[in-house]
Amino acid sequence: MKPAISILGGDMRQSYLAQLLRDDGYLTVTWGLEGGGGDGGVPLDQALEGDLLLLPLPVCRNGMLHLPLSEAELEVERLWPRLRYDQLLLGGLTSELSPRLMADYGLTLLDYYTREDAQAANAVPTAEGALQLAMEASDRTIHGSRCLVIGCGRIGKLLAARLAALGAEVTVSARKYGDLAWIQAWGWHSVRTGALDGTLNRFHFIFNTVPALILDAARLREVREDCVILDLASAPGGVDMEEALRLSLRAASAPGLPGRTAPRAAAAAIRDSVYHILEERGELM
Amino acid sequence: MKPAISILGGDMRQSYLAQLLRDDGYLTVTWGLEGGGGDGGVPLDQALEGDLLLLPLPVCRNGMLHLPLSEAELEVERLWPRLRYDQLLLGGLTSELSPRLMADYGLTLLDYYTREDAQAANAVPTAEGALQLAMEASDRTIHGSRCLVIGCGRIGKLLAARLAALGAEVTVSARKYGDLAWIQAWGWHSVRTGALDGTLNRFHFIFNTVPALILDAARLREVREDCVILDLASAPGGVDMEEALRLSLRAASAPGLPGRTAPRAAAAAIRDSVYHILEERGELM
Amino acid sequence: MKPAISILGGDMRQSYLAQLLRDDGYLTVTWGLEGGGGDGGVPLDQALEGDLLLLPLPVCRNGMLHLPLSEAELEVERLWPRLRYDQLLLGGLTSELSPRLMADYGLTLLDYYTREDAQAANAVPTAEGALQLAMEASDRTIHGSRCLVIGCGRIGKLLAARLAALGAEVTVSARKYGDLAWIQAWGWHSVRTGALDGTLNRFHFIFNTVPALILDAARLREVREDCVILDLASAPGGVDMEEALRLSLRAASAPGLPGRTAPRAAAAAIRDSVYHILEERGELM
Amino acid sequence: MKPAISILGGDMRQSYLAQLLRDDGYLTVTWGLEGGGGDGGVPLDQALEGDLLLLPLPVCRNGMLHLPLSEAELEVERLWPRLRYDQLLLGGLTSELSPRLMADYGLTLLDYYTREDAQAANAVPTAEGALQLAMEASDRTIHGSRCLVIGCGRIGKLLAARLAALGAEVTVSARKYGDLAWIQAWGWHSVRTGALDGTLNRFHFIFNTVPALILDAARLREVREDCVILDLASAPGGVDMEEALRLSLRAASAPGLPGRTAPRAAAAAIRDSVYHILEERGELM
Repeated sequence: MKPAISILGGDMRQSYLAQLLRDDGYLTVTWGLEGGGGDGGVPLDQALEGDLLLLPLPVCRNGMLHLPLSEAELEVERLWPRLRYDQLLLGGLTSELSPRLMADYGLTLLDYYTREDAQAANAVPTAEGALQLAMEASDRTIHGSRCLVIGCGRIGKLLAARLAALGAEVTVSARKYGDLAWIQAWGWHSVRTGALDGTLNRFHFIFNTVPALILDAARLREVREDCVILDLASAPGGVDMEEALRLSLRAASAPGLPGRTAPRAAAAAIRDSVYHILEERGELM
Repeated sequence: MKPAISILGGDMRQSYLAQLLRDDGYLTVTWGLEGGGGDGGVPLDQALEGDLLLLPLPVCRNGMLHLPLSEAELEVERLWPRLRYDQLLLGGLTSELSPRLMADYGLTLLDYYTREDAQAANAVPTAEGALQLAMEASDRTIHGSRCLVIGCGRIGKLLAARLAALGAEVTVSARKYGDLAWIQAWGWHSVRTGALDGTLNRFHFIFNTVPALILDAARLREVREDCVILDLASAPGGVDMEEALRLSLRAASAPGLPGRTAPRAAAAAIRDSVYHILEERGELM
Repeated sequence: MKPAISILGGDMRQSYLAQLLRDDGYLTVTWGLEGGGGDGGVPLDQALEGDLLLLPLPVCRNGMLHLPLSEAELEVERLWPRLRYDQLLLGGLTSELSPRLMADYGLTLLDYYTREDAQAANAVPTAEGALQLAMEASDRTIHGSRCLVIGCGRIGKLLAARLAALGAEVTVSARKYGDLAWIQAWGWHSVRTGALDGTLNRFHFIFNTVPALILDAARLREVREDCVILDLASAPGGVDMEEALRLSLRAASAPGLPGRTAPRAAAAAIRDSVYHILEERGELM
Repeated sequence: MKPAISILGGDMRQSYLAQLLRDDGYLTVTWGLEGGGGDGGVPLDQALEGDLLLLPLPVCRNGMLHLPLSEAELEVERLWPRLRYDQLLLGGLTSELSPRLMADYGLTLLDYYTREDAQAANAVPTAEGALQLAMEASDRTIHGSRCLVIGCGRIGKLLAARLAALGAEVTVSARKYGDLAWIQAWGWHSVRTGALDGTLNRFHFIFNTVPALILDAARLREVREDCVILDLASAPGGVDMEEALRLSLRAASAPGLPGRTAPRAAAAAIRDSVYHILEERGELM
């Protein structure tokens, strides 16, 4: 029999996730998603009865369950004692919580977000969302422009491929020779991240994906005044935003991609990850 | 010696055009672009002294010069008598005006927009702008979606190529076997426009480029309720927008592309066309 | 009822064509294809009974039916009197024959090769065949090389797209501004054919598609000694092959593409063209 | 000062490598490459004087230095005592030799082939060579065909990208969910390697990159009779070649790629790897 699924809190991704799971025939209830456009959800007591509990991404901030679409507030510490050891908990960015929950409450909390499959699936709408934001911010076309992607991780690779496909001249930076060889193998120009100085004024678009201060004040003074800069790295990011503001550059950090630009695709990435976890555990689906 | 250029009216494309021409070293003055963010321009009398006069795209609506960025109003019929036969006039969509101007006033008015080079150069930012609008209108990614492009003209081809490059499954419709063979040669799925009925509910995105009523009420009732429909054809377009509204579909016409999403690229297309006209006439550049 | 089809002579494409038509359920007999690996065919008298007669591509050379796979010889003038006015004749490159046949014998001969759909469908395997020959001739990869495609017709476009997709830096030459704008719109570098002098030593691969002497002795002396040159234009081609030989350049003309590298695909292009002709005439299929 | 380089044995890649190093200004001598088209080389004694000794890829087979382009024979054990501890030895596939050389002779032998940069750079010409072989083996075009790539490692990825770019419908198999998610992220169809049974008759081309018996007798009986099968995995490969022969399938193993199809590109990959090793060791270049 298919497990009964409860979705507890989260943002628009969880709201879409509920719909996607129902489309696949799961009995799914929600709590804490009232502002997300679906039904009003069920009382918390009822939601806590599910076989599978889907927690937000991230599960909590400052000890509080992540509930941006709800008036409700809930300390996660109050949640755990109400759960049973035979329930399976899945959440996003759980590395700190997970061992403690097992030790203190005997609960199993797995992460649907940090797995490679989820990260890859999430990188697609992130890269496409970055493309959309870049188009919106610029009076140019990607076609015919010169683009720099700093960092050749998951998002960097997929973003570079899209920019090149739209007709940009694409340069990707990396630190290691292995990554530089891959950048060339994919057909892009490569540059060592340490050798960026003196090259930055070439670019019409700069996308940072590295979570370290790469575009500091000195480097920002090098870029073209009409350059569009997008920082895709997680906080605190890799762009000195204060200096960028001072220089009147079109720089923006783009947190919350792809939940913002393509929540349905982001939800589908979570859904697939959940299914893979269930399959690997031999759970019925 | 380089010709002195006057830009008379127009939208943001003409405002960018002034800047691009100055970047290339031309002495350029403007009139009727006060709201476009550049300098305030010169008095009309002075603007009319240019060797080369660049008129808007379109030159006029209902007999009035196209002046969306200005408080001024000017009947084009009042303009012609003030010009000299040795001035060269270039404008967009001039087919009706041009023969009459030559006959009545001895003026030479050429079209910088309907030439093949201008149309091709303009199709790039139009296709990219359509992509941007589609991304904005949808909670999905282009990646993994099924897209239909109706019509395989300039914009249809460049748009299909971009959608496919971003990972969509792309179908393009055309009427002629020659076009259908090209669609397949480019690697897309093909369908005869007359055979669209019964296939429309497959698509997450539908882009119309054909200036004829293709998506009528009956066909609109076939599409998915979450389909994004963009009509790129010039007015009156190819989508029954009233019926689309009644069905609560996410349908929009997208006039003014690429002036809206990439005015700089649209201006560059005009600039190149102007240069080609000058070169073909043996004018100094 | 489906028409009975006779295939009279031709090369490997006609041999594959017989198979493809049989796969689609047509009663098909052949004559003059004994060396093509199929069955031995039927006697000529029987072959001439078909409703639809498929003639070679080209139909004849010097008045003789094109029979490269047979020991037989047949003057085409002896063929026509034996046919009936209610039979439909389809052949390749028929422009000279066709009006005379109608006038002298009342026979209808249509061309399955010069139609736009056939030309487009044929350009795909031609471009891919050119790619294969270039790979075979070179000790380099296409990836990372600099390629010049002379001419932006059907084959030029599809070839340029393939070279770019494999990671080459691609330049395409054309004469008209409209074509040059399209070259840029597709994302390739453009150069006016008249301005090639002085640029040729950049390229590792040069593909000519223009049926005029572009690569004359003077220009050949400009190219790199390790450059691979392929002439895809129909005879007499666009490369001074004697001079290329004298300079020990790796230059080759590539006639007979795609019949040589992908006969099945070339046959499929003919088959589709035949079907389209039948459909346009309202014939049963 | 630049190091004096000696190239000892190897195949056409080493012959090209000598030329590439000379093009970069290195004093380079060769021994054991007489059949490779360059100069006749120097006596062994002289070759052993180099600061940097480049050994073949692989260094040896059955204890003998790999000398396919020479009449000479040389047991590697006789080589080591003649070298000095201050010389740097670089070879390909050295994992077994390397620790012992250090222990027994104090010699430093590093591998220019198994590094990530060399593997990535080598995967490009390997993938392109596989494409060439597939084109040569088939009467079809890649365009419009259905291709299966078994395995999503370096070569699998680059090959899949090329096949898709040429217009094939591409499926890639992998075992892990993370890899499957990446396959989808790149826009290809994915299938679990374990679930291949029952799908194999769809494909016109099958490329194996996995060094395990994937295409065993049972699975080979499933493939189309006109399918082209290329085994790119290192010996013993992943295709039951005896069974393939019995079934008259067009199956071939493709060892020695890219040395065979693009030796210059393969040599350039080695050259870059050598430079990176020198730079990382702080050697002068």
